[in-house]
Amino acid sequence: MTFAARFRAVLSRGRLCVGIDPHDGLLDIWGLPRSAAGVREFGLRTVDAVAGRAGIVKPQAAFFERYGSAGYAALEDVLAAARAAGLFVIADVKRGDIGTTMDAYGAAWLTPGSPLEADAMTAVAYQGLGSLSGALALAEEHGKGVIVVTATSNPESIATQTAVRPDGRTVAAALVDDVCALPGTAGLVIGATVELSDYGLAPDGFGDVPILAPGFGAQGARLGDLARVFGSAAPRVAVHVSREILGAGPSGVIPAIESLQGELRSLP
Amino acid sequence: MTFAARFRAVLSRGRLCVGIDPHDGLLDIWGLPRSAAGVREFGLRTVDAVAGRAGIVKPQAAFFERYGSAGYAALEDVLAAARAAGLFVIADVKRGDIGTTMDAYGAAWLTPGSPLEADAMTAVAYQGLGSLSGALALAEEHGKGVIVVTATSNPESIATQTAVRPDGRTVAAALVDDVCALPGTAGLVIGATVELSDYGLAPDGFGDVPILAPGFGAQGARLGDLARVFGSAAPRVAVHVSREILGAGPSGVIPAIESLQGELRSLP
Repeated sequence: MTFAARFRAVLSRGRLCVGIDPHDGLLDIWGLPRSAAGVREFGLRTVDAVAGRAGIVKPQAAFFERYGSAGYAALEDVLAAARAAGLFVIADVKRGDIGTTMDAYGAAWLTPGSPLEADAMTAVAYQGLGSLSGALALAEEHGKGVIVVTATSNPESIATQTAVRPDGRTVAAALVDDVCALPGTAGLVIGATVELSDYGLAPDGFGDVPILAPGFGAQGARLGDLARVFGSAAPRVAVHVSREILGAGPSGVIPAIESLQGELRSLP
Repeated sequence: MTFAARFRAVLSRGRLCVGIDPHDGLLDIWGLPRSAAGVREFGLRTVDAVAGRAGIVKPQAAFFERYGSAGYAALEDVLAAARAAGLFVIADVKRGDIGTTMDAYGAAWLTPGSPLEADAMTAVAYQGLGSLSGALALAEEHGKGVIVVTATSNPESIATQTAVRPDGRTVAAALVDDVCALPGTAGLVIGATVELSDYGLAPDGFGDVPILAPGFGAQGARLGDLARVFGSAAPRVAVHVSREILGAGPSGVIPAIESLQGELRSLP
């Protein structure tokens, strides 16, 4: 099964993607130490809360990397626990490079048996989607995915992502076209607060490609905006929520997930 | 001292930047295992060879990350050995994100005492240079640097990097302007095979900003091209060479470094 087919199957049971973002502020709220042990505990408890209640988790590697190899050992435990619980795991690493370097990133995150194995990794294509070919080839081989940052919500993004290439397409629109041409191995990160038309994008231009949409909650988008922003593509959108779930503290995570899942089920 | 001032001081003693890129092919040439122990040994031996002969090393994190936390422990040892040897260490990680995530990447690579401490990290600004502000603030605080991928040599890069933003500047040229406006905290990655004018760039447009130039050797550029490509900026360019040094095998590394340093000293 391709990544796109696996992702569709997960989304059909619920579109919520729960972030695992143990930054200092959240560690404090949870009463956990700012250490590798703290982020490990945070990640494992979040996985326990998500298991059986939502289908997708997205650990943010940066919050583990800041504790070096000890933080990475914690991340390995969290990734393994999430996969053992049957969750679809997106490693949010936003890697981007060329040649053997990109091959190595793919090997790290997308190879079965790797200590950092995930189901998909996020990536950045500032050097062109072709620069990611090493990771995309591994994704195809193993039914895994590369989810490419395309149109994002932060205000500093828009000038680059709407820039017009020599072929007349915006940077974001060319990425969408290129990803759509791949055999189910890639997805798109599209912020839920963007106006697609500003980027030369349209909801019917995403083909069958999986979409990961951050930006809900504190970043400004509401779940009710899903259909307005993504139109016919809305059922293929993984709705990433982090702060609204994790910020509720350890005892509030499960009610927050259940409430969001309920709301999402009622939406188109 | 700012990153830019520290970098200038290093370059005045020699412009060579030696890559530490233990990919499978090189591990095989060196007779080292494809494992965390192999990349550790590769990195430590390279540091020994460079110490006293060139000023800058650039370990590529991907080749360590593929071995997970064990690979990161190896990278920590290599970074520490390089810094203890007085080398200027550029962690080639090409991180790019926003908000607390970018803060965490900065904390990982640019904070004194972090297990992954380096003197500078490479970064990608697909979400705009402003998205890197967390890492740039840490860089300013600690005299460290963020070296931003700007114009690169791989053919898939050019359509994105020459795309024209709403303000009429190319993506690459706007990045250069924005980096030049920073207080000595950032540098630019500019491939040595690019035609600057294709990107709307010119040698006299780089101000005092440090430049890291990959692309020499197997990737097509010759050291003799340095002045033609970078003009008046050539003295501020760190000349990154990897395959030509590392591919010579453990016994050939020192002669390769000495030969390249000698050639560079004879060039403007």
